Amino acid sequence: MESEFVAWLRTQVPSHPQLILGIGDDAALLSLPSSQCVVTSDMLMDGVDFVLSDCDPRRVGRKALAVNLSDLAAMAAKPVAAIVSIAVPTTASLDMTKAIYEGLLELAAEFGVSLAGGDTNTWKHPFAISVTAIGEPTDRGVLRRNGARVGDVILVTGSFGGSILRKHFDFRPRVNEALDLHLRYDLHAGMDVSDGLSLDLSRLALESACGEIVDASHVPISADAYRLVEFDQRLGSPLDHALSDGEDFELILAVSAETAERIVADRSIDIPVTRIGEFVAEPGLWLRDEAGECQSLAPRGYEH
Amino acid sequence: MESEFVAWLRTQVPSHPQLILGIGDDAALLSLPSSQCVVTSDMLMDGVDFVLSDCDPRRVGRKALAVNLSDLAAMAAKPVAAIVSIAVPTTASLDMTKAIYEGLLELAAEFGVSLAGGDTNTWKHPFAISVTAIGEPTDRGVLRRNGARVGDVILVTGSFGGSILRKHFDFRPRVNEALDLHLRYDLHAGMDVSDGLSLDLSRLALESACGEIVDASHVPISADAYRLVEFDQRLGSPLDHALSDGEDFELILAVSAETAERIVADRSIDIPVTRIGEFVAEPGLWLRDEAGECQSLAPRGYEH
Repeated sequence: MESEFVAWLRTQVPSHPQLILGIGDDAALLSLPSSQCVVTSDMLMDGVDFVLSDCDPRRVGRKALAVNLSDLAAMAAKPVAAIVSIAVPTTASLDMTKAIYEGLLELAAEFGVSLAGGDTNTWKHPFAISVTAIGEPTDRGVLRRNGARVGDVILVTGSFGGSILRKHFDFRPRVNEALDLHLRYDLHAGMDVSDGLSLDLSRLALESACGEIVDASHVPISADAYRLVEFDQRLGSPLDHALSDGEDFELILAVSAETAERIVADRSIDIPVTRIGEFVAEPGLWLRDEAGECQSLAPRGYEH
Repeated sequence: MESEFVAWLRTQVPSHPQLILGIGDDAALLSLPSSQCVVTSDMLMDGVDFVLSDCDPRRVGRKALAVNLSDLAAMAAKPVAAIVSIAVPTTASLDMTKAIYEGLLELAAEFGVSLAGGDTNTWKHPFAISVTAIGEPTDRGVLRRNGARVGDVILVTGSFGGSILRKHFDFRPRVNEALDLHLRYDLHAGMDVSDGLSLDLSRLALESACGEIVDASHVPISADAYRLVEFDQRLGSPLDHALSDGEDFELILAVSAETAERIVADRSIDIPVTRIGEFVAEPGLWLRDEAGECQSLAPRGYEH
């Protein structure tokens, strides 16, 4: 399959100002004038991250790139290139493989990402795709997980829960939002929510050596979270579900109380930004009710 | 598995002068002062590139990095970092996964490569590993496939065939050899032999818009090739096998006749370099016997 497919792929990949040498040699050559590069990789597998037989393969390719762009957004890095390696079942059609790349390339074009290279393989097992994304830090440097300070406010973009209904495929990585906020405000720390809001909050707290209090009534719960818990009562309340769903691909940010006020008031990005709590000295994760009572919140989400 | 494994991995990865930020955040941050970077990726799968139940998992991890370093060698680029994503069967032990990384990290240390990050996943299917390697070009720029000229000589490092007996695991990527030769001589084009000497020769010729004549008696055939064809007569003659085996991970180089003489005479690298033929204007691949008669040589090797 490889040679026919690669020949097709070379016709599909547009030129890019930072891609000096793309598909067709032993490796790609990128121009990265900032002298630093941000690198991240995610592997998605059929039956785990999607069910290929039940969906448009374009959405699978799109998702495989989008999750990586979300990681670059979490670092407030500008996406430059993607490297894509796939393991394709021998029973799969060439059209299916092409469709996966079509979905990926469409998103790549939206975000100015060049497809620099990769590897194409076949085997007798389900489809897997590994994407490595390369980005550049801005002049403000990268946004890390370890910079939250006691007294900082927890901000989140968007809303949480119900991702399986749509969002895990259709989410828009918060690249532009992260770059915009990082440019205009002093962000202390950030990450994206891929495995569950409470689990990822606990990871950010751990790296920053803080604890966190989350205000139960402030967590933005998506309409799809309400729809989903109606279907499946095992998910608990809409809040329980929103705190543990995962694949939300929203941003968690740590900023000073003053910066938080400005960000929320300025409405400088097109999606809602919500204050959901604060960083505290005592380690751990706490859920605060409207009466101000705190109880321990167990981090829950998707463990790979 | 992920959190325990990642905690262990963070203790295993040494610091590296170019790794500003490694495992533990949403992405890694690398310092690449040359302002260009070389990127390559290969995915290896159980049952295709190795049989995990029959081998030491350390060799699998080593191979997954080594094939990528071979691609960087093919570009005459200096390795800097690797990003490693894995899909592990749910039935596999944590010790097996650790052993894979131990083998990989040992080779990484030999070549000064930092393990910058990656992704750890489990599923109900066989093991797969995707490594992306990042390197830097030297001041001489990268070595490409498309620079061979009519009249150039074809040089190869090492010998060919029999890789399944040992070499596909134990080969040493020709990184230092490529860097050394690229620094000291004017190399016109190069690539590594991963899929079969004749197949990879034909790819180099295609990119350079040349044909090639290979002298049958000059192709260096490994001792393991002779051993293997004794076992399995379907492989044809030792030469047939050496021309089509694959996983040799040697270098093919295109240089002027004068440079070829100097390289062979100087013995400047520790492994043999052999002149096996020349680039010609007529497209195609030709095998020349000792009487000087040429016949068409069908490119054969491993198609993914």
